[in-house]
Amino acid sequence: MLAEDLIGILAGVFTTLAVLPQIIKALQTRKVEDVSPYMFFILCLGVGLWTVYGIFKMDWPIILTNGISFILNSLMLGIIITQKQHGI
Amino acid sequence: MLAEDLIGILAGVFTTLAVLPQIIKALQTRKVEDVSPYMFFILCLGVGLWTVYGIFKMDWPIILTNGISFILNSLMLGIIITQKQHGI
Repeated sequence: MLAEDLIGILAGVFTTLAVLPQIIKALQTRKVEDVSPYMFFILCLGVGLWTVYGIFKMDWPIILTNGISFILNSLMLGIIITQKQHGI
Repeated sequence: MLAEDLIGILAGVFTTLAVLPQIIKALQTRKVEDVSPYMFFILCLGVGLWTVYGIFKMDWPIILTNGISFILNSLMLGIIITQKQHGI
Protein backbone atom coordinates (compact mmCIF):
# COMPACT_ATOMS: atom_id res chain seq x y z
CA MET A 1 0.00 0.00 0.00
CA LEU A 2 1.29 3.45 -0.89
CA ALA A 3 1.96 6.00 1.87
CA GLU A 4 -0.63 8.35 0.36
CA ASP A 5 -3.29 5.61 0.39
CA LEU A 6 -2.66 5.02 4.10
CA ILE A 7 -2.83 8.80 4.75
CA GLY A 8 -6.11 8.99 2.81
CA ILE A 9 -7.65 6.08 4.75
CA LEU A 10 -6.59 7.57 8.12
CA ALA A 11 -7.89 11.00 7.05
CA GLY A 12 -11.23 9.47 6.05
CA VAL A 13 -11.57 7.52 9.31
CA PHE A 14 -10.76 10.61 11.44
CA THR A 15 -13.09 13.05 9.63
CA THR A 16 -15.91 10.46 9.54
CA LEU A 17 -15.74 9.47 13.22
CA ALA A 18 -14.84 12.89 14.72
CA VAL A 19 -18.47 13.58 15.67
CA LEU A 20 -18.68 10.47 17.92
CA PRO A 21 -17.16 12.12 21.06
CA GLN A 22 -19.69 14.97 20.68
CA ILE A 23 -22.59 12.49 20.41
CA ILE A 24 -21.36 10.58 23.50
CA LYS A 25 -20.88 13.83 25.48
CA ALA A 26 -24.39 15.05 24.53
CA LEU A 27 -25.99 11.71 25.50
CA GLN A 28 -24.10 11.60 28.82
CA THR A 29 -24.65 15.20 29.95
CA ARG A 30 -27.99 15.76 28.16
CA LYS A 31 -26.78 19.34 27.62
CA VAL A 32 -26.29 20.85 24.16
CA GLU A 33 -26.88 24.54 24.93
CA ASP A 34 -23.43 25.65 23.69
CA VAL A 35 -23.51 23.47 20.56
CA SER A 36 -24.51 25.19 17.30
CA PRO A 37 -27.38 23.34 15.54
CA TYR A 38 -26.49 25.29 12.35
CA MET A 39 -23.05 23.65 12.28
CA PHE A 40 -24.59 20.16 12.18
CA PHE A 41 -27.33 21.20 9.75
CA ILE A 42 -24.74 22.58 7.28
CA LEU A 43 -22.51 19.51 7.84
CA CYS A 44 -25.48 17.22 7.01
CA LEU A 45 -26.14 19.22 3.82
CA GLY A 46 -22.42 19.07 2.90
CA VAL A 47 -21.79 15.36 3.50
CA GLY A 48 -25.21 14.56 1.98
CA LEU A 49 -24.14 16.36 -1.21
CA TRP A 50 -20.75 14.56 -1.11
CA THR A 51 -22.67 11.25 -0.99
CA VAL A 52 -24.72 12.31 -4.07
CA TYR A 53 -21.45 13.35 -5.75
CA GLY A 54 -19.98 9.91 -4.95
CA ILE A 55 -23.05 8.22 -6.48
CA PHE A 56 -22.63 10.31 -9.67
CA LYS A 57 -18.97 9.24 -9.89
CA MET A 58 -19.65 5.68 -8.59
CA ASP A 59 -16.82 6.29 -6.09
CA TRP A 60 -17.36 3.88 -3.18
CA PRO A 61 -14.93 5.43 -0.66
CA ILE A 62 -16.70 8.83 -1.08
CA ILE A 63 -20.17 7.22 -0.80
CA LEU A 64 -19.22 5.13 2.26
CA THR A 65 -17.37 7.76 4.34
CA ASN A 66 -19.88 10.54 3.62
CA GLY A 67 -22.87 8.22 4.00
CA ILE A 68 -21.67 7.27 7.51
CA SER A 69 -20.94 10.96 8.25
CA PHE A 70 -24.47 11.87 7.15
CA ILE A 71 -26.01 9.31 9.53
CA LEU A 72 -23.81 10.37 12.50
CA ASN A 73 -24.28 14.13 11.97
CA SER A 74 -28.05 13.67 11.49
CA LEU A 75 -28.09 11.78 14.81
CA MET A 76 -26.29 14.67 16.54
CA LEU A 77 -28.68 17.20 14.94
CA GLY A 78 -31.60 15.08 16.16
CA ILE A 79 -30.18 15.05 19.71
CA ILE A 80 -29.84 18.87 19.64
CA ILE A 81 -33.40 19.41 18.38
CA THR A 82 -34.91 16.91 20.86
CA GLN A 83 -32.94 18.42 23.73
CA LYS A 84 -33.97 21.98 22.82
CA GLN A 85 -37.63 20.90 22.82
CA HIS A 86 -37.64 18.91 26.06
CA GLY A 87 -34.76 20.36 28.01
CA ILE A 88 -33.33 23.37 29.78
CA MET B 1 -20.28 23.01 -15.90
CA LEU B 2 -21.51 19.50 -15.19
CA ALA B 3 -24.18 18.92 -12.54
CA GLU B 4 -21.75 16.74 -10.52
CA ASP B 5 -19.11 19.50 -10.54
CA LEU B 6 -21.65 21.95 -9.10
CA ILE B 7 -22.69 19.37 -6.47
CA GLY B 8 -19.03 18.79 -5.58
CA ILE B 9 -18.34 22.54 -5.23
CA LEU B 10 -21.46 23.07 -3.06
CA ALA B 11 -20.54 20.02 -0.94
CA GLY B 12 -17.01 21.37 -0.46
CA VAL B 13 -18.23 24.86 0.50
CA PHE B 14 -20.76 23.47 3.04
CA THR B 15 -18.40 21.00 4.75
CA THR B 16 -15.59 23.59 4.85
CA LEU B 17 -17.65 26.46 6.30
CA ALA B 18 -19.96 24.42 8.60
CA VAL B 19 -17.83 25.20 11.67
CA LEU B 20 -18.31 28.99 11.28
CA PRO B 21 -21.69 29.19 13.14
CA GLN B 22 -20.09 27.25 16.04
CA ILE B 23 -17.13 29.67 16.15
CA ILE B 24 -19.50 32.70 16.10
CA LYS B 25 -21.70 31.16 18.83
CA ALA B 26 -18.66 30.41 21.03
CA LEU B 27 -17.26 33.93 20.60
CA GLN B 28 -20.65 35.55 21.34
CA THR B 29 -21.64 33.47 24.38
CA ARG B 30 -18.10 32.69 25.62
CA LYS B 31 -19.50 29.31 26.67
CA VAL B 32 -18.19 26.02 25.28
CA GLU B 33 -18.99 23.68 28.17
CA ASP B 34 -21.19 21.35 26.10
CA VAL B 35 -18.83 21.28 23.09
CA SER B 36 -16.52 18.26 22.79
CA PRO B 37 -12.85 19.32 22.39
CA TYR B 38 -12.09 15.77 21.17
CA MET B 39 -14.39 16.29 18.17
CA PHE B 40 -12.39 19.30 17.01
CA PHE B 41 -9.04 17.66 17.82
CA ILE B 42 -9.93 14.62 15.69
CA LEU B 43 -11.35 16.87 12.94
CA CYS B 44 -8.06 18.84 12.88
CA LEU B 45 -6.10 15.56 12.57
CA GLY B 46 -8.44 14.37 9.80
CA VAL B 47 -8.49 17.50 7.64
CA GLY B 48 -4.76 18.00 8.31
CA LEU B 49 -4.11 14.51 6.87
CA TRP B 50 -6.46 15.26 3.93
CA THR B 51 -4.31 18.34 3.22
CA VAL B 52 -1.14 16.20 3.25
CA TYR B 53 -2.94 13.70 0.98
CA GLY B 54 -3.82 16.56 -1.40
CA ILE B 55 -0.17 17.68 -1.46
CA PHE B 56 0.93 14.11 -2.34
CA LYS B 57 -1.59 14.04 -5.20
CA MET B 58 -1.05 17.75 -6.10
CA ASP B 59 -4.85 18.09 -5.98
CA TRP B 60 -5.61 21.78 -5.37
CA PRO B 61 -9.33 21.49 -4.43
CA ILE B 62 -8.42 18.94 -1.72
CA ILE B 63 -5.53 21.11 -0.46
CA LEU B 64 -7.62 24.32 -0.46
CA THR B 65 -10.84 23.05 1.18
CA ASN B 66 -9.04 20.97 3.82
CA GLY B 67 -6.42 23.65 4.45
CA ILE B 68 -9.21 26.17 5.22
CA SER B 69 -11.01 23.53 7.34
CA PHE B 70 -7.79 22.92 9.28
CA ILE B 71 -7.42 26.65 10.07
CA LEU B 72 -11.10 27.05 11.11
CA ASN B 73 -11.23 23.87 13.24
CA SER B 74 -7.90 24.77 14.90
CA LEU B 75 -9.40 28.19 15.73
CA MET B 76 -12.43 26.50 17.34
CA LEU B 77 -10.17 24.10 19.27
CA GLY B 78 -8.13 27.10 20.45
CA ILE B 79 -11.32 28.86 21.64
CA ILE B 80 -12.36 25.74 23.61
CA ILE B 81 -8.93 25.33 25.26
CA THR B 82 -8.67 29.07 26.13
CA GLN B 83 -12.20 29.08 27.52
CA LYS B 84 -11.59 25.98 29.63
CA GLN B 85 -8.45 27.59 31.10
CA HIS B 86 -9.96 30.97 31.90
CA GLY B 87 -13.18 29.48 33.02
CA ILE B 88 -16.87 29.90 32.88
